[in-house]
Amino acid sequence: MSLEKKKKIKPQRPRGFEDLSGNDINELSHLRNSIQEVYSLYGFDQLETGIIEYSDVIGSFLPDQERPNEGVFSFEDDDSKWVSLRYDLTSGLARYVAENYDSLPKPYRRYQSGWVFRNEKPGLGRFRQFFQIDADTVGADNALSDAEMCMMFSDAIQSTGIETGNYVIRLSNRKILDGIIDSLNIKGNSSGSDINLSIMRSIDKLDRLGLSGVEQLLGNGRKDESGDFTKGTGLEKSNINQIISFLEIGIDSKKLSRNECLNKLSNQFESNSIFTEALEELSQITKIINAAGYDENKIIIDPSVVRGLGYYTGPVYEADLTFDMETDKGIEKFGSVGGGGRYDDLVARLKGVSVPSTGISVGVSRLSSALKYLNKTKNNENGLSVVVLVMDKDKRSEYYQIASNLRKEGIVSECYSGDGGMKAQLKYADKRNARLAIIIGEDEAASNSATIKDLIAGKKVSNKISDNQEWRSGKDTQKTVPIDDLISNVKSILSE
Amino acid sequence: MSLEKKKKIKPQRPRGFEDLSGNDINELSHLRNSIQEVYSLYGFDQLETGIIEYSDVIGSFLPDQERPNEGVFSFEDDDSKWVSLRYDLTSGLARYVAENYDSLPKPYRRYQSGWVFRNEKPGLGRFRQFFQIDADTVGADNALSDAEMCMMFSDAIQSTGIETGNYVIRLSNRKILDGIIDSLNIKGNSSGSDINLSIMRSIDKLDRLGLSGVEQLLGNGRKDESGDFTKGTGLEKSNINQIISFLEIGIDSKKLSRNECLNKLSNQFESNSIFTEALEELSQITKIINAAGYDENKIIIDPSVVRGLGYYTGPVYEADLTFDMETDKGIEKFGSVGGGGRYDDLVARLKGVSVPSTGISVGVSRLSSALKYLNKTKNNENGLSVVVLVMDKDKRSEYYQIASNLRKEGIVSECYSGDGGMKAQLKYADKRNARLAIIIGEDEAASNSATIKDLIAGKKVSNKISDNQEWRSGKDTQKTVPIDDLISNVKSILSE
Repeated sequence: MSLEKKKKIKPQRPRGFEDLSGNDINELSHLRNSIQEVYSLYGFDQLETGIIEYSDVIGSFLPDQERPNEGVFSFEDDDSKWVSLRYDLTSGLARYVAENYDSLPKPYRRYQSGWVFRNEKPGLGRFRQFFQIDADTVGADNALSDAEMCMMFSDAIQSTGIETGNYVIRLSNRKILDGIIDSLNIKGNSSGSDINLSIMRSIDKLDRLGLSGVEQLLGNGRKDESGDFTKGTGLEKSNINQIISFLEIGIDSKKLSRNECLNKLSNQFESNSIFTEALEELSQITKIINAAGYDENKIIIDPSVVRGLGYYTGPVYEADLTFDMETDKGIEKFGSVGGGGRYDDLVARLKGVSVPSTGISVGVSRLSSALKYLNKTKNNENGLSVVVLVMDKDKRSEYYQIASNLRKEGIVSECYSGDGGMKAQLKYADKRNARLAIIIGEDEAASNSATIKDLIAGKKVSNKISDNQEWRSGKDTQKTVPIDDLISNVKSILSE
Repeated sequence: MSLEKKKKIKPQRPRGFEDLSGNDINELSHLRNSIQEVYSLYGFDQLETGIIEYSDVIGSFLPDQERPNEGVFSFEDDDSKWVSLRYDLTSGLARYVAENYDSLPKPYRRYQSGWVFRNEKPGLGRFRQFFQIDADTVGADNALSDAEMCMMFSDAIQSTGIETGNYVIRLSNRKILDGIIDSLNIKGNSSGSDINLSIMRSIDKLDRLGLSGVEQLLGNGRKDESGDFTKGTGLEKSNINQIISFLEIGIDSKKLSRNECLNKLSNQFESNSIFTEALEELSQITKIINAAGYDENKIIIDPSVVRGLGYYTGPVYEADLTFDMETDKGIEKFGSVGGGGRYDDLVARLKGVSVPSTGISVGVSRLSSALKYLNKTKNNENGLSVVVLVMDKDKRSEYYQIASNLRKEGIVSECYSGDGGMKAQLKYADKRNARLAIIIGEDEAASNSATIKDLIAGKKVSNKISDNQEWRSGKDTQKTVPIDDLISNVKSILSE
């Protein structure tokens, strides 16, 4: 027991949980603020729901899984009911709307940002806790609410600093594929059936596996590079060919205008009521997007988009970054940073009445990586400007006053609050990337003056600082001023 | 089975989890931004750690509980290790510092805000998920780092809109009481012993139970109004009297200056090395606070403050709101909205070397209630300004363009995105508190014009809107303008 007690506990995080500091956390704040500002400008209201929900209330609608609660962190509450950490922000929204239906405006348009959790195998850039920024219109069954999502999605991505041409919103409709599959007369198929979902999931892998990979998955199956075999859907060759020729339109769609793509789809596939309905919906959405003047390369129609989530029932959207990126595997497209779509049945599950809805979700971690790659990361504008050094420990209260007075001018300042000597203080200032150090040693105190040392300029002059004497000798990068003129001098240096 | 499947799931939240919308979520954003801006101005860096941590790594240092993991949400991860939802932001910080010790600046000064979780019985204003905003200096063992916490605490509370006189930072030192208890020669007592903690906890209830309640708890015990009996610490009468006379200084301290309170303490209690050390520390902290010119009524010394958390080792701080508040029980003081203190052993638990630290934590929910009570709630400045009504569903793309153009001017605008008729749209605009409605009906369309209706002014004229005709007749609160002048007219109305 006492041995057990003395064993030192190793400080570590559970797998797939990340600490954010420095520019990563600044970037998260920047992305959240930019995107929320767009949502807010569109008249969406902010909502914050709890991180824990009843498991049966939020269910599980995660992609690629048949078993309930797979992928969700769940545990028993003290009243013996099972609760889960939210795996997205939509399931909590559905609960919120069903619970407060009568008092909400209709439609209810809200945005929400926050951490969501997936109990999955973590990997490179794949976390078990990640940040999403969502917007949804709940209780609207028309093309305008879908069109608005696409355009707001485009504005949101653009607000973060990614330029037109480097991203695209891909718009499609689940029912296009439903219609095509329906027209193939595949045994056992219906919207939402196992075979239908299996086809959807195969197609969802187009970006990653290419046409030949999807072809294998639609047929007998596919062996990946590691030798693992994924069982296929088992379609007949003629059916596979139909689906592949449909996907080819998707691949071509990048070069087509929205209207051209719609025309090609309606010309190339035989008439089917579900398919026709899908095209009619897309055509209405397109009319609104065209009227609002969105560039053809900002929002495209791409029928190969299906989105993995099980609850989508109509139009689906995906935001892709289109620039090339060097990776270990060579040049690749960056890919998806978010998605969304229409889900007409999610609230009905809890409310009993139909509440047609549509929404989008931006994945912040991936977007943040993209901005880093593009060198668009916002540097910390609130970085440390001034460190007042503690030259004499008995005079801390005087040094502190200087930092305090600088802060009154809005200058980010601190009096060194540790216990180290001069060397430790210089190391500290360096590590914090402080711009200026203020030094009041014996000489300065005797002459009622203070020395302002420009640390950044000093670093440029010499990266080798070995001792106090050497460091303080750099004439060009420091100046001594009367103590009464200290603040005005600091201000003028910082504004240079 | 099929009956089970058909049973409608009731939309509800687990107990103690809250939804924030409207002004509540605006208020949270306002508080977070204001307080973080203060922390940032002091040169603290932002950090974000994960919500899930290993249970043994963060341990449990919650007040009033002996059993480990009581009060903490914990569950088994898929690698059979126990994980917990963080119950505060300090335990994750300790893990972060221990894990990244070598690469961090020393001292490491960080702020963090986020949701924390307590598996406790929820009650009025007592949630199982709540928001904290913390700042800590890790690796500093001097009065300046403690003094800075008190002053930054004061600045943080003030930044939210609470004025001097309505709040006070109460400063004390755990070792004062340790010294007094030590001098009493109580059997079995030592710092951190059961009897010592029992005395601390009794004293921590002073605000709630008054002197007589604490006297009972220090003695044989106390029966509360409901008849429940709490066992007492069982001290002798003479010892109880000593502690009570010490607490009386605490009660008087509100009228004393910081220096007067220190003098009174040193004169009234017999010399004891722990007690003397405590007073010396407080005296050094006071010197810095005085030099920085903080009003005597912003930061006071109040020896009755002990704070419940087990890990504090020296100076402790508490932010109290001091204004009277009408409650069901009569007039009460609002009380604590946050606290903090020095904790020198928390990181050592994981790191093996001593890392003396000090920090503060603001509880946002309570602060938010206080601001509501003071009528200082920030109203939503980004509220909806304009709703463009859908008078003809075939013209949605035209209506949408108007909203889109208004947004380009930075005006929060939307085109009604639901499917309802005129009545539903008016109800919607009303519920959203929209300022203006833009109406392009048949008449307006024929004359290339648009009607701008001032909904807020209209509401003042008449709260009874029964039909479209009546609503549209209000001459004073609407005007019809050429469509080309619409945007400039909206801008000028909104800027009035």
